[in-house]
Amino acid sequence: MLKDKKYVVGVDVGGQTTKIGVTDAIGNISARIVIRTDIYGEDADAYLKALSDAILSCIQQADVEGAVKGVGVGAPNSNYYTGEISNAANIAWANNTTVKFSEKLSALLGGLPVSLTNDANAAAIGEMVYGSAKGMKDFIMITLGTGVGSGIVIDGKLLYGHDGFAGELGHVTVDRSEKARLCGCGHKGCLETYCSAIGVARTAREWLDTTDEPSSLRSLESISSKDVYQAAQAGDALALRVFDFTGKLLGRSMADFVKFSAPEAIVLFGGLTKAREFFYLPMLKEMNDNLLPIWQGKVKVLFSSLSESDAAILGASALAW
Amino acid sequence: MLKDKKYVVGVDVGGQTTKIGVTDAIGNISARIVIRTDIYGEDADAYLKALSDAILSCIQQADVEGAVKGVGVGAPNSNYYTGEISNAANIAWANNTTVKFSEKLSALLGGLPVSLTNDANAAAIGEMVYGSAKGMKDFIMITLGTGVGSGIVIDGKLLYGHDGFAGELGHVTVDRSEKARLCGCGHKGCLETYCSAIGVARTAREWLDTTDEPSSLRSLESISSKDVYQAAQAGDALALRVFDFTGKLLGRSMADFVKFSAPEAIVLFGGLTKAREFFYLPMLKEMNDNLLPIWQGKVKVLFSSLSESDAAILGASALAW
Repeated sequence: MLKDKKYVVGVDVGGQTTKIGVTDAIGNISARIVIRTDIYGEDADAYLKALSDAILSCIQQADVEGAVKGVGVGAPNSNYYTGEISNAANIAWANNTTVKFSEKLSALLGGLPVSLTNDANAAAIGEMVYGSAKGMKDFIMITLGTGVGSGIVIDGKLLYGHDGFAGELGHVTVDRSEKARLCGCGHKGCLETYCSAIGVARTAREWLDTTDEPSSLRSLESISSKDVYQAAQAGDALALRVFDFTGKLLGRSMADFVKFSAPEAIVLFGGLTKAREFFYLPMLKEMNDNLLPIWQGKVKVLFSSLSESDAAILGASALAW
Repeated sequence: MLKDKKYVVGVDVGGQTTKIGVTDAIGNISARIVIRTDIYGEDADAYLKALSDAILSCIQQADVEGAVKGVGVGAPNSNYYTGEISNAANIAWANNTTVKFSEKLSALLGGLPVSLTNDANAAAIGEMVYGSAKGMKDFIMITLGTGVGSGIVIDGKLLYGHDGFAGELGHVTVDRSEKARLCGCGHKGCLETYCSAIGVARTAREWLDTTDEPSSLRSLESISSKDVYQAAQAGDALALRVFDFTGKLLGRSMADFVKFSAPEAIVLFGGLTKAREFFYLPMLKEMNDNLLPIWQGKVKVLFSSLSESDAAILGASALAW
């Protein structure tokens, strides 16, 4: 008798750690293992061996041997079409090189199918299958973390584009002036340089350096987005204005995204959404003010309903169904 | 014996005239009729009656009665999902109102299926089925006419979005500064206010008004994009710089579009493409300069290969297959 393949493995590859979970069709995670991503230097094969061992342990721990349909992986700079990770700046074994990730991992797992996509795409799938976008066929997921990522769902399917690299909305230009900020990608004025955790800290630092306005942030040696958030919570006027500015810029960009794909909703995800109380209203107003009348007040703006630690595993695992 | 449905009717609704053609599967137009769009005032029913009569005459003229599969219509401000034309500023019978176009036309044609989409979408379908984008599954069509329109093809299908209004790229914001141009849509800084026929004339007028630079355009009472084109052909330095500026702005916006959907190609269409010799190179360079390395030099920029008068009919007819 054939055993039903009722489980999948979700893998979330981060710069420091890799999270592995065995999940069922309704999103229960029955076993979890975390391994380090960053102790293998440039040796991708050593990492992949450790990962495959951990996946097999996790399957054993969940007691579902023989019932696993496949493995879904979300990782930075990943390509769904080729199954490769290329030039991932924060991962030594995938920096300045290309790793045939899916092919190698599948071989190490005795041919178990492996699907790979970038982390923002995985988050979008997770949101569609288990989260705020459940049942939606057209939405845009924007991840506001250290950087800004995006996963775009069109007619119920993730948008990969001609080459698998669609959805780089963090690098859309929001400031075309001379004074636009330099981005890690080498260009100037990218959304990511303003509306990410790093962007928020950068805005605060810039404003402190160019004005005499009093702010509790002045006493700090280096400023993180968390510092700006805490200052805003304490009522610091400059910190509050930083989030207002960030929200407006994001809202204006979201209006342009709507003009492209006319989504039912935009779903926001990632660490910066903790500060939503300070940027939600200016963001929403600026988005609607910049939309054509056909869309004003009609595009939903939602926040992820998945816990951040589970979302990535669930998203990656959803890819494997 | 059932007669094969080997023909379709393509209808291109413009502000002044409506073009009707009977086409076969390989894009031959076997009969054509042109009627006026603009002589019916606000009486949509009178227009629809005249249109249905013309469609029946056209079918008769082509001698294909009983062999017509359906009617495809491209029109401004049209919605594929609802079959309606709403608030089309240049058509009196559809301005400040909604016309149940597909439903009414189909009834007048004895139940023949009618599919409606906006004109830029129709052009994109035409390009995919018969033109420069033949065989492509992912491309963006940008129409550079009086305004700027767009039709986006993803995985071989036209992108309609949640509500049928996707692809309003003419209204993406390209200038967020205080001095940004006011657009007909009520917002400021839309791509359409710079990279359309009207935008080109507006740029020339602005530069003439704010500088003393000599230019053959100074002698003209009012300036059209055609005037700027002819001045550029004659070597007028200001006119040449207008196209350089227009090309750069368009190229930069195209880079942002690529970051969204990662298309194989961007196809340009419409009256302004006649001046391609003056804007193609700066446009291409600016696009590539603003792309992430994964896309630099890889995204094709093509011009429509369909004659302008046929493209709209062919695109609309392709919708009916």
